[in-house]
Amino acid sequence: MNRQAILHIVDSAYCYPVSERELVLRLRTAKGDIRCAQVLYGNKYEIGESHKAVEMEKCYTGELYDFFEVKLTLEDTRLAYVFYVSPDGKEFYYFSEDGITEDYDFELAFYNSFQYPYINGADIHRRVNWLDEAVFYQIFVDRFYMGNQKKDTSYINCKWGEIPNPKSFAGGDLRGIIEKLDYIKGVGCNAIYMTPVFRSISNHKYDISDYYQVDPQFGSNEDLRELVQTAHEKGMRVILDAVFNHCSEELKEFQDVLKKGRDSAYFDWFVIKGDRISADRDNYETFAACTYMPKLNTSNPEVCRFLIDIGTYYIREYEIDGWRLDVSDEISHSFWRRFRDEIKALNPDAAIIGENWHDAANYLRGDQYDSIMNYAFTKACLDYFATGTKNAEQFAWKLNEILVRNTGTVNRMMLNLLDSHDTHRIYKEVGKNRFKVKAALGLLYLFPGVPCIFYGTEILTYGGFDPDCRRCMDWSKTGKDGGCADMFYLLRKLSELRLRERTAEGRVKIYAVQDVFVLENRTDKSIIRLMINNTEETYRVDLMELEAYSFCICVNEGAVIYEKN
Amino acid sequence: MNRQAILHIVDSAYCYPVSERELVLRLRTAKGDIRCAQVLYGNKYEIGESHKAVEMEKCYTGELYDFFEVKLTLEDTRLAYVFYVSPDGKEFYYFSEDGITEDYDFELAFYNSFQYPYINGADIHRRVNWLDEAVFYQIFVDRFYMGNQKKDTSYINCKWGEIPNPKSFAGGDLRGIIEKLDYIKGVGCNAIYMTPVFRSISNHKYDISDYYQVDPQFGSNEDLRELVQTAHEKGMRVILDAVFNHCSEELKEFQDVLKKGRDSAYFDWFVIKGDRISADRDNYETFAACTYMPKLNTSNPEVCRFLIDIGTYYIREYEIDGWRLDVSDEISHSFWRRFRDEIKALNPDAAIIGENWHDAANYLRGDQYDSIMNYAFTKACLDYFATGTKNAEQFAWKLNEILVRNTGTVNRMMLNLLDSHDTHRIYKEVGKNRFKVKAALGLLYLFPGVPCIFYGTEILTYGGFDPDCRRCMDWSKTGKDGGCADMFYLLRKLSELRLRERTAEGRVKIYAVQDVFVLENRTDKSIIRLMINNTEETYRVDLMELEAYSFCICVNEGAVIYEKN
Repeated sequence: MNRQAILHIVDSAYCYPVSERELVLRLRTAKGDIRCAQVLYGNKYEIGESHKAVEMEKCYTGELYDFFEVKLTLEDTRLAYVFYVSPDGKEFYYFSEDGITEDYDFELAFYNSFQYPYINGADIHRRVNWLDEAVFYQIFVDRFYMGNQKKDTSYINCKWGEIPNPKSFAGGDLRGIIEKLDYIKGVGCNAIYMTPVFRSISNHKYDISDYYQVDPQFGSNEDLRELVQTAHEKGMRVILDAVFNHCSEELKEFQDVLKKGRDSAYFDWFVIKGDRISADRDNYETFAACTYMPKLNTSNPEVCRFLIDIGTYYIREYEIDGWRLDVSDEISHSFWRRFRDEIKALNPDAAIIGENWHDAANYLRGDQYDSIMNYAFTKACLDYFATGTKNAEQFAWKLNEILVRNTGTVNRMMLNLLDSHDTHRIYKEVGKNRFKVKAALGLLYLFPGVPCIFYGTEILTYGGFDPDCRRCMDWSKTGKDGGCADMFYLLRKLSELRLRERTAEGRVKIYAVQDVFVLENRTDKSIIRLMINNTEETYRVDLMELEAYSFCICVNEGAVIYEKN
Repeated sequence: MNRQAILHIVDSAYCYPVSERELVLRLRTAKGDIRCAQVLYGNKYEIGESHKAVEMEKCYTGELYDFFEVKLTLEDTRLAYVFYVSPDGKEFYYFSEDGITEDYDFELAFYNSFQYPYINGADIHRRVNWLDEAVFYQIFVDRFYMGNQKKDTSYINCKWGEIPNPKSFAGGDLRGIIEKLDYIKGVGCNAIYMTPVFRSISNHKYDISDYYQVDPQFGSNEDLRELVQTAHEKGMRVILDAVFNHCSEELKEFQDVLKKGRDSAYFDWFVIKGDRISADRDNYETFAACTYMPKLNTSNPEVCRFLIDIGTYYIREYEIDGWRLDVSDEISHSFWRRFRDEIKALNPDAAIIGENWHDAANYLRGDQYDSIMNYAFTKACLDYFATGTKNAEQFAWKLNEILVRNTGTVNRMMLNLLDSHDTHRIYKEVGKNRFKVKAALGLLYLFPGVPCIFYGTEILTYGGFDPDCRRCMDWSKTGKDGGCADMFYLLRKLSELRLRERTAEGRVKIYAVQDVFVLENRTDKSIIRLMINNTEETYRVDLMELEAYSFCICVNEGAVIYEKN
């Protein structure tokens, strides 16, 4: 037994309440090391006298570890517990706050058992239920569709379809999105996440100069209102991009600081060395190294008020369904806590989705975001589908590891993606292999969390890093003769499956057999199995066994889609 | 190399900022496994091109693990990093969010390096500086000293000095504490933590019926004001006990619910099954199983407001120096965050010290408490000094493990204790061996954190669990002929050492040589070494070597105190 491998962390993704009476416990052990694991538990005031025992299930296996899990339903939630593990069913060990021991004195448990001392309702991370049925379509507005043909088009500097450069303006707008809502629905998507729409001189609009005005290139505030209303009428959701880490140098508060230096009332809105902005613009903090995007100082309560007012304004006045938070990892926990409090007070169902590319556990405790854009999932998919640095087994391990990073609550709300405006297009990554894209989409839709496709994925849009991944939508490919009927069919099927079978509530098992990747999603209604063969080899699949399953995609130099009716 | 043992957790006690430009990183490895560990780091936007390297120091060794540590001073705090470790100085491995690998692609670091994306001032846990010089004296008020001889003493039902029972009232009061402030100072203490003083029918007063009134048995609100003022004049601090998890059944809000059931405006102040309190009092949540102490529902914003108003009232109106938080682990994180925000807004130097007996990392991130009562330290001391279940080496390991549970910031504010009103007296635990008590006190004062002695420790008060540990102070032992001059001398010396050498800022190393326990505390001024021999054996100590050290306690069937001048 590898004693050093055993891990449990109280009040974390290893121990979290899911309701006032239910709590999930996880235990990490070295892979293949522990045959059975139990939780010995009781009311913390009484465990000295007696305790209950419950078996844990091995739910996840990573490269180095197994992860056991159990959900406790408690009469009294003042929980004290120790683990009781055995490598062979003969030797048994206790695992408490004092580590692995052969004996354990329950009478002194008040000193060294694990404890979750009480489930307070206020600390439970409440799920945003509509995310269970959501399929997102991410839109980079300037490149999607121009709906308003009457607007002043003098800012447009490239032809629709031209490969964009960093300064291209193609003309896409909110009216265009309104007109294409039925199209998006036809792709099987029922939620939209738009990159920023507020006043800004750039095409991406991540440098905002007025947070209360839709950029005239994209339309008017009334267009935004109409977009949200129309989407809602069609049963669709809309979330916007909250760019709160930084603003445009054109923001009037920054302009005031540029003029007055320390005498400006807004001097402390930014992080400036010295008394004024230097001529060469190198003495204040910015997004990345972009001097035209000064960082907002969210340690200043005035700035917090300014930004949270923006956040609540669009929830209240435009009834948007949530926010995606740009560069949220560079903003303070303290800010996001206040943000959540005020947003959720207005609408507990508003989704709050951070842009943290890395482990964000400390933002995902129920007091800040609901979830993040799951770039760890993206990276794992690239390692398997694109570069082949992971085989099926290694890929399965990695996905299991990703699932234990966060609570099950968070996993169910994760915004999973294969690509975005900040990465290569998946179609480029896999070397234009459409079958791989389809297999990856199968995974995207069946993996715990919320699938999000980047506009144009349905027509296999190609492109490298920004600005190449932000090409204009090629509408000629969306028709019957566009050559992408199979893609539309797959996406609709996957979306139907998600809604019909409630796969978001499914219990997922991920593993590999030979070099075939397997994801099983067990719902109340069915068992759905996704199998992917990402190799040149042929593996035999027993169709008799498959009969038990309602949906199956096999990819091996081609695609088999199998659905039992 | 035991790959499964390696652990790093971002944004935790393994990675935390200590100022706007400084960040501490820790890495856990299997004991004796890794010869050298480096951090490779850079600005997260530029680490693809270049990175710096810095060596980590092995600072702590536990039973199973070594812990490496380094403090980075950063120009740009948008930190990306990976660890670079070697078991032998020949083979090297990278450790990132993707685990242990032989190679690492810095160009894809944006996907899988570790990151601390930006140090936001608002997220830094600010230290309460006065705690660096604090030595606490905990007082159970009813048993310390009766100062007001004129009060109505009809409630007193036992003679001073009689062994107390759970219902004993002995007459101690705030006036008594005021009169004994100089005595307490003479013991070397400069801070007082009093168990509750507000209106309550019990002797311990953990069941409060009016939070705005000092209990008449203990005196008046004016006495409290005078106590705090007098203490301040003498350079002493006072913290009170915040009993917010539960109240007395006599609280008027609970009385209203008793009468009216669900029709009471205060029904949701408590956690009640059904529509009214049942006749046998078994349908509402309480502290432990005490029906006379109903639990307050801190998931109700009204209750939060009620309690936080109490917290701020005594900070603002009585200028107390902080709160000890009773049963704080059963109250929501959400409550403590609001509590901290409002308390610190009034006085950033107010200390907030939780009563969590177990791992409280999730309460100690800088958004809730400053520290806790360190019962893990207490337990380790008992295992070594009292029961002997740990030898010197195992004790050293345990103390090291306790130090990596929390950030250095928290460690410096930890309220360390050998006993309290909720445990056996240390003098009982060690079988009346005064030399062991003295050795334990030496450790208490030199270990990182804030020493806290329970009233009467200086005169070797004896006693088991509550109420036995709450015996009346035996003032006859405090005089010259009391037989405890050695105790007073030691405590004064230790306190002087703490203040003179600023041991709280010292860098501590804890280990064992043979079966001798060693704690080294290196300050700017000196190196202090505590050596404890807790065995029957004699070990040779080289006094030549000792010359380098300013203070030394050796305990072996006797005590040697050595101080170099």
